[in-house]
Amino acid sequence: MKNLIIASTSTLHGSGYLEYLLGTLETHFNEFDEVLFIPYARPGGISYDSYTAIANKAFNKIGKSIKGIHEFNDPQKAIAQAKGLFTGGGNTFVLVNKLYKNKILDSIREAINSGTPYLGTSAGSNICGLTMNTTNDMPIIYPPSFKTLGVVPFNINPHYLDPDPNSKHMGETRETRIKEFHAFNTQPVIGLREGSWIEVKNGNLMLKGKQDARIFENNKEPYEIKTNSNLNFLN
Amino acid sequence: MKNLIIASTSTLHGSGYLEYLLGTLETHFNEFDEVLFIPYARPGGISYDSYTAIANKAFNKIGKSIKGIHEFNDPQKAIAQAKGLFTGGGNTFVLVNKLYKNKILDSIREAINSGTPYLGTSAGSNICGLTMNTTNDMPIIYPPSFKTLGVVPFNINPHYLDPDPNSKHMGETRETRIKEFHAFNTQPVIGLREGSWIEVKNGNLMLKGKQDARIFENNKEPYEIKTNSNLNFLN
Repeated sequence: MKNLIIASTSTLHGSGYLEYLLGTLETHFNEFDEVLFIPYARPGGISYDSYTAIANKAFNKIGKSIKGIHEFNDPQKAIAQAKGLFTGGGNTFVLVNKLYKNKILDSIREAINSGTPYLGTSAGSNICGLTMNTTNDMPIIYPPSFKTLGVVPFNINPHYLDPDPNSKHMGETRETRIKEFHAFNTQPVIGLREGSWIEVKNGNLMLKGKQDARIFENNKEPYEIKTNSNLNFLN
Repeated sequence: MKNLIIASTSTLHGSGYLEYLLGTLETHFNEFDEVLFIPYARPGGISYDSYTAIANKAFNKIGKSIKGIHEFNDPQKAIAQAKGLFTGGGNTFVLVNKLYKNKILDSIREAINSGTPYLGTSAGSNICGLTMNTTNDMPIIYPPSFKTLGVVPFNINPHYLDPDPNSKHMGETRETRIKEFHAFNTQPVIGLREGSWIEVKNGNLMLKGKQDARIFENNKEPYEIKTNSNLNFLN
């Protein structure tokens, strides 16, 4: 049975890396001491080693350690043998490109489907959706495809931002962008505000965290859903 | 000789479509009454007809009319015969996808190189750069490539936004995104603020409009450049 935490962000304003999630992660990765980290999204272009060190420092606070997938010769085997998986945020295009190059999308999907606990933040959450078409990231690399894991039956929009009524900037609001997405695609999109996450456990999809979420279904007006709501109806 | 206006935005806050540019466009398209419009970027998913009507209404104010490329059976021929070209804003992924499907990127480049006056706004400006890797748009469609016209020797980032020092949102700033771009790409990027445009005329590239621009060169700190500066040094 799938066991996922799909978080909008790794970090809340004024708080440390993963700090708001540590209690939840202690339970989520309860049974194992070591989690395999996928640092491919490289936020700010940092190295895999530097990024892994940041994740490790946070996990040490709950008595666990992190090992980067780049430390293994065979990434497919590393995933198959991992007791827990964490894909960090950064740039979704960079992440997805590397997942395809290393041919490990199928490995991650299989691990998730067989019950390996998974944590995604930001870009690492985007890839849980059907496609990466609703990422906010700049397309700094051309990946072989926008298709992602599809371990939830919708798309994710992390770091969801409400329109600023005082803005004089003419770039599209997040809501406009997702409406444009639905001019070409039909799957629902969850606008996941910072501080929220989707928990997939025991066959249920639940919205968790401090914020409500905004749901975009094709040919419907967008609407709000309260935290702690069940999301099973979305597919 | 190339003759281009590459504008950050079609519309300034509180002003009509193309309003701030109309005086400039009257001179730019001086010699001809009809301009060929490429509405493929479909802002908000609107139809080609609706979008063309909006552009036509603005051009009527300077005594010119617009014809949409979708009204022609042979888009390549329409471009070759056009006296002036305008590619409107919207979603760059949708635009570039359609340019590839209709095989007209080469036609547009040839027209520009042979001196056909061109106007781009937002997505229509992005495609003037070497690649579309620095668009702000959501990747709602997977185009066959991110390579674009390359009629200027750098990339464009339209609607450039300075970081908001009061923001508590943890999504990347525009500057961070462009720095990430340079972890994987080497060409310079011009952050073009709303109200600015690049004018290519008589072999010169000039920054025009009310705002200064921010320049991002690989392995350099970003810096400001004043409006009315020459941009020929960037290549």
